[in-house]
Amino acid sequence: MLQELSAKELPKVEKEITDFLNTSSANDELKKSMLYSVEAGGKRIRPLIVLATMRAFKKELSAPVYQTAGALEMIHTYSLIHDDLPAMDDDDLRRGKPTNHKIYGEALAILAGDGLLTGAFQLISETTLAPAENVLLIQLLAKAAGIGGMVAGQAGDMAAEKQQVSLEQLKTIHRGKTGSLLTYAFVAGGILAQQTEYVIELLEKLGNHIGLAFQIRDDLLDVVGTTEELGKQVGQDQKSEKSTYPGLLGLEGAKQALTTELAQAEKTVQQLAEATEFQPEVFEELLTLFKL
Amino acid sequence: MLQELSAKELPKVEKEITDFLNTSSANDELKKSMLYSVEAGGKRIRPLIVLATMRAFKKELSAPVYQTAGALEMIHTYSLIHDDLPAMDDDDLRRGKPTNHKIYGEALAILAGDGLLTGAFQLISETTLAPAENVLLIQLLAKAAGIGGMVAGQAGDMAAEKQQVSLEQLKTIHRGKTGSLLTYAFVAGGILAQQTEYVIELLEKLGNHIGLAFQIRDDLLDVVGTTEELGKQVGQDQKSEKSTYPGLLGLEGAKQALTTELAQAEKTVQQLAEATEFQPEVFEELLTLFKL
Repeated sequence: MLQELSAKELPKVEKEITDFLNTSSANDELKKSMLYSVEAGGKRIRPLIVLATMRAFKKELSAPVYQTAGALEMIHTYSLIHDDLPAMDDDDLRRGKPTNHKIYGEALAILAGDGLLTGAFQLISETTLAPAENVLLIQLLAKAAGIGGMVAGQAGDMAAEKQQVSLEQLKTIHRGKTGSLLTYAFVAGGILAQQTEYVIELLEKLGNHIGLAFQIRDDLLDVVGTTEELGKQVGQDQKSEKSTYPGLLGLEGAKQALTTELAQAEKTVQQLAEATEFQPEVFEELLTLFKL
Repeated sequence: MLQELSAKELPKVEKEITDFLNTSSANDELKKSMLYSVEAGGKRIRPLIVLATMRAFKKELSAPVYQTAGALEMIHTYSLIHDDLPAMDDDDLRRGKPTNHKIYGEALAILAGDGLLTGAFQLISETTLAPAENVLLIQLLAKAAGIGGMVAGQAGDMAAEKQQVSLEQLKTIHRGKTGSLLTYAFVAGGILAQQTEYVIELLEKLGNHIGLAFQIRDDLLDVVGTTEELGKQVGQDQKSEKSTYPGLLGLEGAKQALTTELAQAEKTVQQLAEATEFQPEVFEELLTLFKL
């Protein structure tokens, strides 16, 4: 199921993004810089969740779905470009390739990020959705990406560097930093699939568990993975003295925390199956992506 | 008229922004960094144009107007923070005070910019406007601020550094860099005032002339103004070998170009007065702000 979505449907999301960027009046260097990071690939986990959620509710995929998923991926991509900047995490490698500023320079990398972020809101505002639904999707995207979500989490992450934080503080940081966009992916899928408020709340809960699972797994891979496997430098967290789950809970404790989050996600999928017409197997398969 | 708007109405726009930032879940340092640049002041010319346009059409000001104007000022503020970064224009002074990164460091300045940009779209999506009108205002804001507008202009400006550009190229750069947000201010005012498509087109034309006038004046002040008067370092354009109107046209030629743009703006105001119920004196007064 996910393989079919990845192979046949994700390219349509990617085409929405690249068409949008190519038809803009930006100069060639700026376009190239944005396209470089968009085309660097990655697992496209956020748009995949939007598509999978629609599919789980047995809904047809259509242009507004691809555009919403594309806007979400553009926001994710901008955040990677800015996070990699020398003043931020100062990373040279991303998805096995040099980071944006290594190729295009810092100034253009900053502008490419700004352009992708702003462009995401243009793309999502240009759908043919009913205006009320469109405004809601825009509002929730801005919340998830902004100072109540991802940007806040990133600032919290920076503030926490080189000092010991509690598990609760770490969860709050990651709920913002990675959790909020992942949760948005489920919620946006539910809104596009015309689900009830109760179902959307369950999707939000599912997103929160998956978000934490994602981050714990990411922290674990930074310890036990290799640069070759991951396409980025490992051991970076320890180098920058970042607080992580393995750092706070130990390797086994972090593995246990991951198992717990995934079990709670699993339980939420069952609740969804009880609440609405729903294909749980789509999400069962999705959950396997977050196992070690 | 403008003095009254500045004294009594602009504070309501500012309150929308500061309330929005203060109630976010961002950590204290990030909030302080965003508020620092928002509260650094400036002429608030963009929100002032939104308010003045409403007033010119004899419309009552209300919360959605303050929020739209606030979102626009947040976008302008983010662009200043990012433009001042060492990798970009590398400015130490802005509005007579140290630039954001000089106080909060580069990483937090990047995040403050990202937070203000994303927050602008949240604030404007939270109005009580009819959804269709709201989506249109969001879409045009994203266009004006993004890779078909301001970000494209900024990238064009950078690409043009240290090389000779034609007058046409310079106009294109500035139409994006400063013209697009100024034009949006007029257009948004017209949309909020429920004007016809023809009137909105005239407002767009007016905005284009004002936008060029603004930039020519800015270039001229960099040559003939003082750091004390302007609250920013003068002579920066020559230092960074930027193409400017005085550089291309000479001092007298640039002054003449400014006069021409303002005359065309004046003519557009007359066309507006013929097209709709309209108080031209509001815009007459506004135009005086762009004289040398």
